[in-house]
Amino acid sequence: MKLTILGCYAATPRTFTNPTSQVLEIRNHHFLIDCAEATQVQLRKNKVRFTQINHIFISHLHGDHFYGLIGLISSFTLLNRTGDLHVYGPKGIKEIILLQLRYANSYTGYQLFFHELESTASEVIFEDEKVVVKTIPLKHRVYTNGYLFQEKPAERKLDPDAVRKYKIDICYFQNIKNGKDVTLEDGTVIPNEKLSFDPPAPKSYAFCSDTVFTEDYLDIITGVDVLYHESTFLESEAHLSERTMHCTAKQAAEIALKARAKQLILGHFSTRYDSIEHFREEAMAIFPATDLADDGKIFEF
Amino acid sequence: MKLTILGCYAATPRTFTNPTSQVLEIRNHHFLIDCAEATQVQLRKNKVRFTQINHIFISHLHGDHFYGLIGLISSFTLLNRTGDLHVYGPKGIKEIILLQLRYANSYTGYQLFFHELESTASEVIFEDEKVVVKTIPLKHRVYTNGYLFQEKPAERKLDPDAVRKYKIDICYFQNIKNGKDVTLEDGTVIPNEKLSFDPPAPKSYAFCSDTVFTEDYLDIITGVDVLYHESTFLESEAHLSERTMHCTAKQAAEIALKARAKQLILGHFSTRYDSIEHFREEAMAIFPATDLADDGKIFEF
Repeated sequence: MKLTILGCYAATPRTFTNPTSQVLEIRNHHFLIDCAEATQVQLRKNKVRFTQINHIFISHLHGDHFYGLIGLISSFTLLNRTGDLHVYGPKGIKEIILLQLRYANSYTGYQLFFHELESTASEVIFEDEKVVVKTIPLKHRVYTNGYLFQEKPAERKLDPDAVRKYKIDICYFQNIKNGKDVTLEDGTVIPNEKLSFDPPAPKSYAFCSDTVFTEDYLDIITGVDVLYHESTFLESEAHLSERTMHCTAKQAAEIALKARAKQLILGHFSTRYDSIEHFREEAMAIFPATDLADDGKIFEF
Repeated sequence: MKLTILGCYAATPRTFTNPTSQVLEIRNHHFLIDCAEATQVQLRKNKVRFTQINHIFISHLHGDHFYGLIGLISSFTLLNRTGDLHVYGPKGIKEIILLQLRYANSYTGYQLFFHELESTASEVIFEDEKVVVKTIPLKHRVYTNGYLFQEKPAERKLDPDAVRKYKIDICYFQNIKNGKDVTLEDGTVIPNEKLSFDPPAPKSYAFCSDTVFTEDYLDIITGVDVLYHESTFLESEAHLSERTMHCTAKQAAEIALKARAKQLILGHFSTRYDSIEHFREEAMAIFPATDLADDGKIFEF
């Protein structure tokens, strides 16, 4: 998995900081998560090819998370995109985008599918042979979802030495990769674990932004490998945090601890602070495996 | 008058170029003309204070001219704006903005007035004691207006030496500035031109973007001091220009010549060309007083 942070600051775009948007590369997918104003410029700056983006997940309909969507959809048309585009987001997103395309009299030249969400329970919204994506219902000022991206277990790896030793015919290889034992012509059964290695453990990534501090979604993210969690404020601004339904760095760390996450990435920083390092310090006191997002930063796990 | 170009390129925002937006300072007003995606960042970069913007003029509902409006309106709220904001633009603009504010559940904390346009004849849409703004109906793929900004004649300037010589009482000063003669107590009439100087000639600025080549709006802009005119293509791409209802640099120059403009500024450049200097060369063959817009460029006249 590779995570490219296009923007990770709260509220308004500024000269040197961008609101929320990120690209998760997972098993050959390039999932765009949130799409704040000028995300298309951030994609260009970070050299993410537009044609790689086929699925866009929008957490909620606040501007700092989706005002760049209409521009990206329009630019795809201007650049003669042909591939399907799937947009997942709160109910209303389709109406907002189509209204603007209608007034511009410029409908997309490609198939545009909206998957509108309104459930307050977690649901599987995308699944193929390699990846599952589930919603993480969050609590914010408007209907909001985080997203959990889970790799499915990969095929087992063939052990070339063992295969040669037991003179296994090529026609059995796919069965071995699928975990099956092999029965030789003389009736001998070679157990699968003698012929193959475990595949790399499937990884998972949870994106949680924006939300007030609550344990309601702990079950869904428990055991996640990497948790990206909003931490708009420090504890010194806990009053603002509660009022605006956001989290502090300390609260994000508590969530990571309780969810037994392996790694925490903080983001959605208020631009009021002189340095985002304060967020790391506050969180690490509770959850040491804490890292900070920043625009243009890449995480590989 | 001072014109700050925030963006002057066509179609999609790119890493180093921005779509249409500009600020016209005229008689203490800061008029924002068009508002493409990330205009709020361009305002910051070019040090235009958000609180100075009270009137926004949108030419048409294509993304490269107004997708930054919703973000700017939202940021004004986040930054606790209190002053009224007036938005002028095609019918539909109010529906688009209000729909997004409704789904974000974040209405503006200031008064937001929409002045929706649908006339195909030129009309006065703003007037105070110093400035008049009229629409310039253009011909594009959707309903589009350019805007003509005209200073009103300023007050005459008092001639301090003459006023002293004729011993004119201070109570007559405003009348003199307003062009009136002064009758002394002995019945002598001092003609105004002996007591005051002509004010600087009122200036005018026409913004024409986007439009196909047509003489339909020549009457409205005739004699304009500064004409900003779109020139999306060069003559070598005249076929594209006609199909997409844009102008070439040559056509923009022909309009400037026929309108007897004093100065032409070209903009709305397609990003397909290696240098925008080609636009200047093509236009200057017809209209020598041609200049090029560019992001961040400031014109004073």
